[in-house]
Amino acid sequence: MGKARSIIQKVTSGDIRTVARLIGDIDDGIEEARDLLKELYPYTGRAYIIGITGAPGVGKSTLVDQMASHIRKNGKTLGILAVDPSSPFSGGAFLGDRVRMQRHSMDQGVFIRSMATRGHSGGLTGTTRGAIDVLDAMGKDYIILETAGVGQEAADLLKSAHTKVIVLIPGMGDDIQAMKAGILEAGDIFLINKSDREGAEKTLNDLRLMMDMDQKKYADGRWRPPIIKIEALSGRGVEEFLVEVERHRNCLMKDNGSLGLRRNKEMVSAELKDMVSARLLEEVIGHLAASGDFNDAVDAVVRGDTDPYSACDNLILPLLKIPDL
Amino acid sequence: MGKARSIIQKVTSGDIRTVARLIGDIDDGIEEARDLLKELYPYTGRAYIIGITGAPGVGKSTLVDQMASHIRKNGKTLGILAVDPSSPFSGGAFLGDRVRMQRHSMDQGVFIRSMATRGHSGGLTGTTRGAIDVLDAMGKDYIILETAGVGQEAADLLKSAHTKVIVLIPGMGDDIQAMKAGILEAGDIFLINKSDREGAEKTLNDLRLMMDMDQKKYADGRWRPPIIKIEALSGRGVEEFLVEVERHRNCLMKDNGSLGLRRNKEMVSAELKDMVSARLLEEVIGHLAASGDFNDAVDAVVRGDTDPYSACDNLILPLLKIPDL
Repeated sequence: MGKARSIIQKVTSGDIRTVARLIGDIDDGIEEARDLLKELYPYTGRAYIIGITGAPGVGKSTLVDQMASHIRKNGKTLGILAVDPSSPFSGGAFLGDRVRMQRHSMDQGVFIRSMATRGHSGGLTGTTRGAIDVLDAMGKDYIILETAGVGQEAADLLKSAHTKVIVLIPGMGDDIQAMKAGILEAGDIFLINKSDREGAEKTLNDLRLMMDMDQKKYADGRWRPPIIKIEALSGRGVEEFLVEVERHRNCLMKDNGSLGLRRNKEMVSAELKDMVSARLLEEVIGHLAASGDFNDAVDAVVRGDTDPYSACDNLILPLLKIPDL
Repeated sequence: MGKARSIIQKVTSGDIRTVARLIGDIDDGIEEARDLLKELYPYTGRAYIIGITGAPGVGKSTLVDQMASHIRKNGKTLGILAVDPSSPFSGGAFLGDRVRMQRHSMDQGVFIRSMATRGHSGGLTGTTRGAIDVLDAMGKDYIILETAGVGQEAADLLKSAHTKVIVLIPGMGDDIQAMKAGILEAGDIFLINKSDREGAEKTLNDLRLMMDMDQKKYADGRWRPPIIKIEALSGRGVEEFLVEVERHRNCLMKDNGSLGLRRNKEMVSAELKDMVSARLLEEVIGHLAASGDFNDAVDAVVRGDTDPYSACDNLILPLLKIPDL
């Protein structure tokens, strides 16, 4: 039995150390890890993936902690991936979360892992997708993808989730216009956390109003995102929220029919695009950095010998084999 | 005189229609616009670029509106670029802002433009950088880059600014750990807007505490980001804020010495990397979409004929000319 075969077997039988090491290798952009993912793929497609997003401070980790307790109480297993696209600077993600999550850390049914951009150019979406596949192949019933922020990268990450959950707190709904474009279309379920605070009702009504303005989207029996007031700290509303997750899951299953949840064309397309983008940047930027060509170009622009637009052309074009370029 | 020459001349003499059309072309990813940017580059490097970021609802547009009034009162001109990386879904950015900004819209000294991802793969950082160069070449004294969110893409956009401003509101500083990694290192100035609200003092103290924990970073006379309480709606604190912007500018000038503000190695490097990434995605993803190869690959994964990791290899590798790949 080859080494790869042995790793695959360990992952699919749930060996935690092997899983942790493989996810680490994926996070580090190691090539062998990518080959292992190809062989693991046939074992994936069973886990249900829940994406949780929202601005820093809305209480995502507390919520995820509560979700973990409920899911375990129902006898199901889960993996938690905490991904922080908003810390590109230090790479030191989720220190506080790790501390908070400790009460689950002794439970073999919960696998917790923080992902951070480790400086390689591929970005988080590719490595996160890989980590999801590993946890899926490992046999987890649920995978919770916790991601900070509501920007493009958070949106890209969310595309890997079956149910996309947006967490808000009272007072954040002030600027309806600013929120409208980005958030509404992304969410399958909206949570208003810290809903004991002043303004919870207003935030709820603002959200509802926005949905009402978009009637046709929710017409003819399509999923209309519920808005649920919760208090993650005390656990109030979390069970109701998880009932809605199951309801959404059933709705998705019906829509996808015999293809199942994984082989959804929209999800595959979004994921493949992210993978292609990540891989492309990793290979090309990696090559330009290693060869010294990138640094030479920066120096030339700083000296005023060239403009950045021409420098960019000169770096990229020799590396591409595209007809008519 | 060639057509390009004529456009360059119109831009540098401040012709608003030419500028608007050129920025539109850049936003649309039109190739001629890229060539024009190369020729415009020698005319850039004079404008001072201020980046404003913060979560939706913190009052960025109101603040920018106030800044515009102050800058105009001092006899200086400005361009405003409102960039919204958090609306990848609809592309309909900043409707509310456009309305709010109308009181400046008749003033020739203020050029306002919203940028949105128009679906092409290059992303916002490349097009935004191009738009900044156009406004710079046009002769604007200040360029304000207003961007929503605190995610990776917002951080990338901010790299084009000389002074990076983070706007917060009371109550958002609850989760210090979550904020710490991403926000602290990005900001040159912190504003606490809506500071008449409960919790302003706590947010200020939380921020101060975080900086104190990071003493060495601010040692030996390096810039220590001030934290200023403002009320953008009434204008309170905005003048004090702009004084700090000038103080930061002087600090940067001293650091960069004879190279001036533009030819800062760190900024050039960050920008060139963004440009290379954007261009790469545009060319390769554009080609894969146009040729139909991407759709074929998605179908193959959906049918179960291949896994996405192998599909990704098969799409990319034939297009790259990298030794040892």
